[in-house]
Amino acid sequence: MPMNQQIHLVSRPSTEAVTSNFKLISNETPALQDGQVLVRHHFLSLDPYMRGRMNDTKSYTAPQALNQVMLGGTVGEVVASKNPKFAVGDKVVGMGGWQQYSVVDANQLGALRKVDTTHIPLSAYLGAVGMPGVTAWYGLVKIIEPKAGETMLVSAATGAVGSAFAALSKARGCRTVGIAGGPDKCKYAVDELGFDACIDYKLHKDAASLSQALKDACPDGVDGYFENVGGMVLDAVIQRMNAFGRIAVCGMIAGYDGAPLPLSYPALILTNRLKVQGFIVSEHMEVWPEALKELGTLVATGQLKARESIAQGLEAAPEAFLGLLKGKNFGKQLVKLI
Amino acid sequence: MPMNQQIHLVSRPSTEAVTSNFKLISNETPALQDGQVLVRHHFLSLDPYMRGRMNDTKSYTAPQALNQVMLGGTVGEVVASKNPKFAVGDKVVGMGGWQQYSVVDANQLGALRKVDTTHIPLSAYLGAVGMPGVTAWYGLVKIIEPKAGETMLVSAATGAVGSAFAALSKARGCRTVGIAGGPDKCKYAVDELGFDACIDYKLHKDAASLSQALKDACPDGVDGYFENVGGMVLDAVIQRMNAFGRIAVCGMIAGYDGAPLPLSYPALILTNRLKVQGFIVSEHMEVWPEALKELGTLVATGQLKARESIAQGLEAAPEAFLGLLKGKNFGKQLVKLI
Repeated sequence: MPMNQQIHLVSRPSTEAVTSNFKLISNETPALQDGQVLVRHHFLSLDPYMRGRMNDTKSYTAPQALNQVMLGGTVGEVVASKNPKFAVGDKVVGMGGWQQYSVVDANQLGALRKVDTTHIPLSAYLGAVGMPGVTAWYGLVKIIEPKAGETMLVSAATGAVGSAFAALSKARGCRTVGIAGGPDKCKYAVDELGFDACIDYKLHKDAASLSQALKDACPDGVDGYFENVGGMVLDAVIQRMNAFGRIAVCGMIAGYDGAPLPLSYPALILTNRLKVQGFIVSEHMEVWPEALKELGTLVATGQLKARESIAQGLEAAPEAFLGLLKGKNFGKQLVKLI
Repeated sequence: MPMNQQIHLVSRPSTEAVTSNFKLISNETPALQDGQVLVRHHFLSLDPYMRGRMNDTKSYTAPQALNQVMLGGTVGEVVASKNPKFAVGDKVVGMGGWQQYSVVDANQLGALRKVDTTHIPLSAYLGAVGMPGVTAWYGLVKIIEPKAGETMLVSAATGAVGSAFAALSKARGCRTVGIAGGPDKCKYAVDELGFDACIDYKLHKDAASLSQALKDACPDGVDGYFENVGGMVLDAVIQRMNAFGRIAVCGMIAGYDGAPLPLSYPALILTNRLKVQGFIVSEHMEVWPEALKELGTLVATGQLKARESIAQGLEAAPEAFLGLLKGKNFGKQLVKLI
C-alpha cells in the first residue's frame, strides 16, 4: 500500500486559527478489508465551516477530534477496490479529509459517490456541483423563495457559494447583487459571474457607509439576502431589506475567529416582518438530487463559470485555509494533491 | 350631539415618551351623515405598538399624526345610527381612538364589528378575543407551529398577548413557560394562567443569569419563543433555543424608548438553525375568524382567564400608557370611559 501524507489538527485556536494548529504526518495506508475502497485524492476542498469544527464548543456537530485527520470533502480516483460497486479508475467524491489517500467503507450510505466527468470537471464536484452549490440552492430556493423581478443579494459573492447563487438567482429572473472584497473580485462578479452589480465592502469603514452603497446598488431594496459573513455587512444589509424580506443564514465568517459579533438592529426583523433562518445543507439531503441536477446543467452549459483558487500540495493546505478565512482566495478554494 | 373628550398627540418623544406628549381636548361630536354611526366607547385599549406610532420614523405604518386623536382599539355601544346595519344598543368593536365617542363610517370594510356579549365580556374583545389574542394565535400557530411535547416560552407572560399564548400553547400539549416582571406576576402566571413555570426577569441582572434560570425552567431547551420585549431577555433566550427552534418576533418593547438594542449572538441563528420571523397581525386578516373562534371558546369555557388593568377615565390614559411601557400594568391594560 502507498505511503500517505495527512494533516492532523493538533491544537485548538484560542482566537485566530494559526498554522501551528495543524501538523503534517506520514504513514502507510492500511490494507483493504472487504467492502473497502482506496481512493487517491485529486483535490481537497477547503471550506469556512471547518473553522467552526476546530473549536471545542457546542455547535451543530461534534468538534474535529485532536490528533486526527482534519475532515474535508475530496474528489479522486479509485486506485484499489474490494467493493464490487467500485472499480479502479472510477472518479468519486467523498469526505476523504486532509490527506492524499483515504480508505473508505464504500457500502456505507453516502460515503462515496461516483461522478461523471464527461461535461463537468472533477473539481467542480467540490464546488458548483457539490456542497457549496447545493448550499446556495437550498438557501435561495427553500428559504428565500425568490420571485422574478425581486432583488437578491449575497455576500462573499465570488466564492463557491456566491458564484452558484448568482447563476441560480439570474435563472429565476431576479436582480442579483453581490458583496465582495476588492475591485478585482467585484469586476469578476459582474463580468464573469453574471451579477448585475457588486459592492466592494473594503471601501466602507462602517455599516452606515456600506448601507448607503447598497441603497444605490439596490434601488428597489433587497428582498432576499444570502448571508455568508455577518458582522458589519449584516448590519448594513438589514437596513436595506424590504418588508417581508428573507435572510438565509449560511455563515458568519467575520465572527469565526474572535468575539461574537452582535446584530445592531434586531428590531428591524419586526418592523420589516423579516424572516431570518439558519440552515446546514447536510441536514437536507432530500434536496441534493434536484439541486445537483440544476447545478450540473448550469455548469455543463457554461451558465455557471465558477473560478477556483488552487493551492499545490497537501502541505499548502493550512496556509490556504487561513487565507480563505481572511478572504484571500478568489473563487472556490481547493488543494491539488496530485 | 354630545360633547366629546379626546386625547391628541401634540409632540413626539425625543427618548422616553412623557405625558406632555399628549393633550386633552373637548369638542362637540359632529352630526351624522348617511351611513355613519355614533359609538359611545366603554373601553379604550392601550397597547405597546402605540409607542412606535409616536415616532416619526420609517416603520410598517405611517406615524400617528400630530394634533389628531391618538389611534387605538375601542369597544362600545351604538348610541345613534344612520346606517341600517347598526342599531342603537348594538355592542361594537372598532378603532375609535383615545376619545369618548367616535363617528364611524360603518360601511367601510372592517371599520366596525358587532360582537356578542352573552358569554364573553365586552372588554375581552380588546384583549383575549381581540387583536392581542389573535397576535398570540398567529405567532404560535403560523410561525412557531408547535408540536405536542415541545417547550414554548413567552415574554411579557401576564400581558394580554402572553395570557392568550399560554392557553393556546397548553391546548396544544406544550410545556409552557413565561417570563414576567416580579413575584406577583409570576405567581399569577402559574396559578391562574396555566403556565408550567414563570421566571421573574427582575431577579436577574444580566442575560447570563437569566439564561441560567431559563435552563432550569426549560430542562429540554426551548423550541418556540414568542418575543415581546427584546434586549437582555432575547439575549438570554436565544442561548436556550433548541436546534430548529422558532422565534416569533411580535414586539421589542425594551427598545421602544431609546437607543436600538443589539442582539448579542446572531451566530446562534446559524448554529442552531433557528427561524426568527417578525409579523404584524393586522396584515393577516385571513386568520382572524379561525383565531377568534378558538379564543372565544377558550374564554367562554374559562380556559383563558385574562386579567385586566383598568384605568378610570380618558384623562388617565397617558399615565396608564406610560406605565404599560414600563410593565406597571398587570394583564391587559384598558381605560374605562363610562
